[in-house]
Amino acid sequence: MAHIHTLQSLIGGRWLGAEAATPLHNALTNAVIYHTHADRIDFSEAVHYARKTGVPALMAMDFQQRAARLKALALYLASRKEELYAISHLTGATRADSWVDIEGGTGTLFAYASMGSRELPSSNVLHEGPAMALGKSGGFAGTHILVPRGGLAVHINAFNFPIWGLLEKFAPSFLAAMPCIGKPATATSYLTEALVRMMHESGLLPEGALQLVIGGTGDLLDRLTGADVVTFTGSADTAARLRTNPNLVANSVPFTAEADSLNCAILAPDVTPDDPEFDLFIKEVAREMTGKAGQKCTAIRRIIVPQQQVQAVGERLRERLAKVSVGDPSVEGVRMGALASKDQQRDVAERVAMLAKGNEIVFSAGDGFKPVGQGVENGAFFPPTLLLCRDGLRNDAVHDVEAFGPVSTIIAYDGIDEAMALAARGKGSLVSTLVTRDVRTAAYCVPMAAASHGRVLILDREAAVDSTGHGSPLPQLKHGGPGRAGGGEELGGIRAVRHFLQRAAIQGSPTMLAAVTGEYVRGAAVRESEQHPFRKYFGDLQIGDSLLTHRRTVSEADIVNFGGVSGDYFYMHFDEIAARDTQFGKRIAHGYFVLSAAAGLFVSPAPGPVLANYGLDNLRFITPVAIGDTIRARLTCKRKVDRNRTDDKGVGQGVVAWDVQVTNQNDELVASYDILTLVMKRA
Amino acid sequence: MAHIHTLQSLIGGRWLGAEAATPLHNALTNAVIYHTHADRIDFSEAVHYARKTGVPALMAMDFQQRAARLKALALYLASRKEELYAISHLTGATRADSWVDIEGGTGTLFAYASMGSRELPSSNVLHEGPAMALGKSGGFAGTHILVPRGGLAVHINAFNFPIWGLLEKFAPSFLAAMPCIGKPATATSYLTEALVRMMHESGLLPEGALQLVIGGTGDLLDRLTGADVVTFTGSADTAARLRTNPNLVANSVPFTAEADSLNCAILAPDVTPDDPEFDLFIKEVAREMTGKAGQKCTAIRRIIVPQQQVQAVGERLRERLAKVSVGDPSVEGVRMGALASKDQQRDVAERVAMLAKGNEIVFSAGDGFKPVGQGVENGAFFPPTLLLCRDGLRNDAVHDVEAFGPVSTIIAYDGIDEAMALAARGKGSLVSTLVTRDVRTAAYCVPMAAASHGRVLILDREAAVDSTGHGSPLPQLKHGGPGRAGGGEELGGIRAVRHFLQRAAIQGSPTMLAAVTGEYVRGAAVRESEQHPFRKYFGDLQIGDSLLTHRRTVSEADIVNFGGVSGDYFYMHFDEIAARDTQFGKRIAHGYFVLSAAAGLFVSPAPGPVLANYGLDNLRFITPVAIGDTIRARLTCKRKVDRNRTDDKGVGQGVVAWDVQVTNQNDELVASYDILTLVMKRA
Repeated sequence: MAHIHTLQSLIGGRWLGAEAATPLHNALTNAVIYHTHADRIDFSEAVHYARKTGVPALMAMDFQQRAARLKALALYLASRKEELYAISHLTGATRADSWVDIEGGTGTLFAYASMGSRELPSSNVLHEGPAMALGKSGGFAGTHILVPRGGLAVHINAFNFPIWGLLEKFAPSFLAAMPCIGKPATATSYLTEALVRMMHESGLLPEGALQLVIGGTGDLLDRLTGADVVTFTGSADTAARLRTNPNLVANSVPFTAEADSLNCAILAPDVTPDDPEFDLFIKEVAREMTGKAGQKCTAIRRIIVPQQQVQAVGERLRERLAKVSVGDPSVEGVRMGALASKDQQRDVAERVAMLAKGNEIVFSAGDGFKPVGQGVENGAFFPPTLLLCRDGLRNDAVHDVEAFGPVSTIIAYDGIDEAMALAARGKGSLVSTLVTRDVRTAAYCVPMAAASHGRVLILDREAAVDSTGHGSPLPQLKHGGPGRAGGGEELGGIRAVRHFLQRAAIQGSPTMLAAVTGEYVRGAAVRESEQHPFRKYFGDLQIGDSLLTHRRTVSEADIVNFGGVSGDYFYMHFDEIAARDTQFGKRIAHGYFVLSAAAGLFVSPAPGPVLANYGLDNLRFITPVAIGDTIRARLTCKRKVDRNRTDDKGVGQGVVAWDVQVTNQNDELVASYDILTLVMKRA
Repeated sequence: MAHIHTLQSLIGGRWLGAEAATPLHNALTNAVIYHTHADRIDFSEAVHYARKTGVPALMAMDFQQRAARLKALALYLASRKEELYAISHLTGATRADSWVDIEGGTGTLFAYASMGSRELPSSNVLHEGPAMALGKSGGFAGTHILVPRGGLAVHINAFNFPIWGLLEKFAPSFLAAMPCIGKPATATSYLTEALVRMMHESGLLPEGALQLVIGGTGDLLDRLTGADVVTFTGSADTAARLRTNPNLVANSVPFTAEADSLNCAILAPDVTPDDPEFDLFIKEVAREMTGKAGQKCTAIRRIIVPQQQVQAVGERLRERLAKVSVGDPSVEGVRMGALASKDQQRDVAERVAMLAKGNEIVFSAGDGFKPVGQGVENGAFFPPTLLLCRDGLRNDAVHDVEAFGPVSTIIAYDGIDEAMALAARGKGSLVSTLVTRDVRTAAYCVPMAAASHGRVLILDREAAVDSTGHGSPLPQLKHGGPGRAGGGEELGGIRAVRHFLQRAAIQGSPTMLAAVTGEYVRGAAVRESEQHPFRKYFGDLQIGDSLLTHRRTVSEADIVNFGGVSGDYFYMHFDEIAARDTQFGKRIAHGYFVLSAAAGLFVSPAPGPVLANYGLDNLRFITPVAIGDTIRARLTCKRKVDRNRTDDKGVGQGVVAWDVQVTNQNDELVASYDILTLVMKRA
């Protein structure tokens, strides 16, 4: 049966690997369950395939279509998740640990599908406006666009989240039209292989969009160019080695690192053992120590506690940890599984010994420790271990030595500034949690903590109801911290997609900028026709289709009537005496009247393709409208986004944004805004 | 007199350097004009001073105050600019070249002062919202903030722009509250020293905000931490060496590089010698070749021209270059000065020889070349030199060898795709120019060029009127390109300030997020009082001050009256029959009526501190309002920005943004938006 357990790489669209190489072990039993393959990977083929097949296939779709594809992929993987849970069990993970990896992974695909659909255009040029005039004639302007780089992404991952790790990097780079080469850490690469096999079988991946490397990356990095990117999650040492790869350096290949760090949780001075916040603190710390057996780059390694609460925190944590049953997660009641490998087990033991020098061990299962379950005596288990550091300002080990397992150290502090100084001693971390009920403490501490932590969680009874917890990176929020944490940024919503795109400044005439960005730019050529633009279907509308309305002279009666209808009798509109003292020197029309009258000027009353005006952006009132002024509006089709959506009757529709400029008899700009509409497609 | 010509470093607040070291030469005459200093710099002092004095001094101000300080500094430097012009002449620069350096530099300060005032808060926390709900109870939300990193910026610059180079890096990092250590290239460091002396003399720099290193950086980079940043402009080789400094790598110190690149200008196939665009192309290329004697990292090195226009372009360029008088810029009629040093002169000559292998020299002054002026026979002059490459796809040198002087190569192409392929052969450039009159060509080429160029200029007769030119980075637009160009981003408006800040995700209850960000977040605690929030002065208003208005039942008469006043008779409001077929199934009130009625509900009619409602953002109509529905509004003070401004009567005012939520009788959100007001300060 050995041959069926040899893992395979997916290179050039084919699965490769027949001959067995390194054995991989069941974390619970230490039995050999897979081998990596000995077959050599031709990385020039992999890179060539990504460039010549992957890039064109991805560029044949637009952002919206790739977002839709991500959603389909997420649904497909969700339908086969139990197969992944079964394999995940072999890594030593509990069902809850696997949930984070598996459903966290598919959830990230869903989230990027949804954010992509909401925020990205139906083209391959993302306009990062607004365009700005450069010079006085109106003939020259500038703006920025973000475009696919035309290269590939190499994603190198850690062993702890074999599924989420790949997917959280794949999702934004896929949206950015980058073919990916994924390289999981070898120890748990069998789970990533199972995932990629599913993705491949789904038939949803454009050709060349994803390749998988089992084993080492060989000369892969030496083959990259400035159009490519490398992302890495893992140890700081490996990050440093990869980051200085001469080819990456010579070609300025973007390199993003996310490294383990000595994250902390801080119990603020206002919290006492009687507060619900005290319980929240204990629970959060205990969960982070034992979840995934402490093998999370976000795990709490430093428990920063006021001097006077050290004893209470120690006692409550000991109580909680003592109840954690460690063993085979398939046994009922087991709450913590194994480390990923015997190598990890050795490494954690060594680091606990380093931490124990000069610090006290306040909780440890010690020699009597035996994991629960059958045949697990050779498994990679490690019992929860709690230490205490009484002088955190002088002890370096607690801030520098990371035991990547269920290990954490209580550090006593005296005063909130000392707590913040201790937190910063981590030299850059992924996340810190501040447990407090006091808004002033949060307002004081959090901006300070933000300088050295990628994420800060403020926990109190109000937040606790829905809190996603210290240890969970979310697709919407940035993941990655400065300094020791690697200095990278991942996730954080559409920011992550932008990181995989290339930004360029564009200069030229407004007409040229409109052609390039796919968005109307003020001053660009417009197209006026007999047909009202609101009477055109989505597919027929063109950027620049424009209507210059008839005029309307604003009278005192308008102001009076508008006051009557709205109930807005503000002195600037109604008080001749007070209005004299304003900057305008006289009564002016309501801004909302101008807006309403403009709609009256450009609306096309009969039913037509424009289904709804659902919003308005960037409204600025520029020149006031006085009694006797005459206004008109120019309405221009500014932006179209085709989300490939239909209404409940199956009629297709798209989003159209319109540029509106209201001017007066002197051609001065009175009001400027964008309106957002839904426009029907032809049946 | 030798002692007065020894340059000094500004370290720890004191000018240091008495003993002369390396001689620096007048570029025009080769006479020794300055020496660097031999005195050793204690970089531990410099770093300590920046951290312990500079950071607190800068953090004692907020973004708005630092923006105001930048403006004062710009005004001060502008008042002393002639002193700088006098020194700049020694670098070989013409008045026009010096203008780019000197007024480009102060202009960048002005621009950052203005953008900072417009776009940054009057605090040290930049909220990068919107905040988003995480979970269903409303008790937990997330957002991002950007905060000063608490470290220092080391800015290492090239010899070609001794003033602009320092100021374009200083301005955004100063706004970001980072003390700077500037290190100019030695050859022209005397001009940077003069600038820094002025800045120091201005008395406008907070203590520790700027230090200057004349000579090498010693062990400076080895002393940095993850809170610091390094920016570099110069050669790719030096960039690679600095980027791999073990301390920078170990601590993930952000390193931004901007390297010279082989920028190109492309003449599109649609342009013929009879078009004005042809002249524009010739002028742009000639200007970029000779401006600053070609010593610009943005200069056009590759002139990409259709096969059939090669001869015409060659002729017209030769004519133009032949008229360029080279010599001492103080002699009338001289249009091009010297290279910065004899070293540069040697280097350029060597590289021209490399380029000449396999390519033709089509214009060169040759042996007969003599610079114009007195005593300039030993100056670092180099005559304009034009080459021709007939097979750009097979010649590597034209895409790889940069002669950093008045040297450029015409490269013939056949078809626009070949032109784009040639452009990309630069492996990443700072800028490219596309000269075309055809919008389709621009729309096709520019997104492609954007993948490998930091900036793309589209030049035609319309843009030419105000064009700032191929070679000019602007503060508003990104500067820096991928790959060979270093992969960095500078400038680009407030983006540059963000690069010097640290981003963190923040999670917690809306109340906590509001306290941390200084912005009201939906769901956060509000404060309601007897006093209408519109009656509070700027200083008295607090984030979260809120008014829940009385209610108003919307009747058919309202719709009818609103139609009459606005002229908006859209069928959804007025046509009972057509409205039946909409998603709402019945007539609904105008969105703008809801907006106007909400203003009527929350307005406080008598004169008061609120001076004007000048705009509205992020309006979304969520639930439609039907006849008989009853609406009310909640108005909450969301954001305050104190720009330290007064009106023409000397009354202080600040910007206040208000969160508005309009709800119906079922507490469903009807409309959601922010309004922007100006609010008076107490006299």
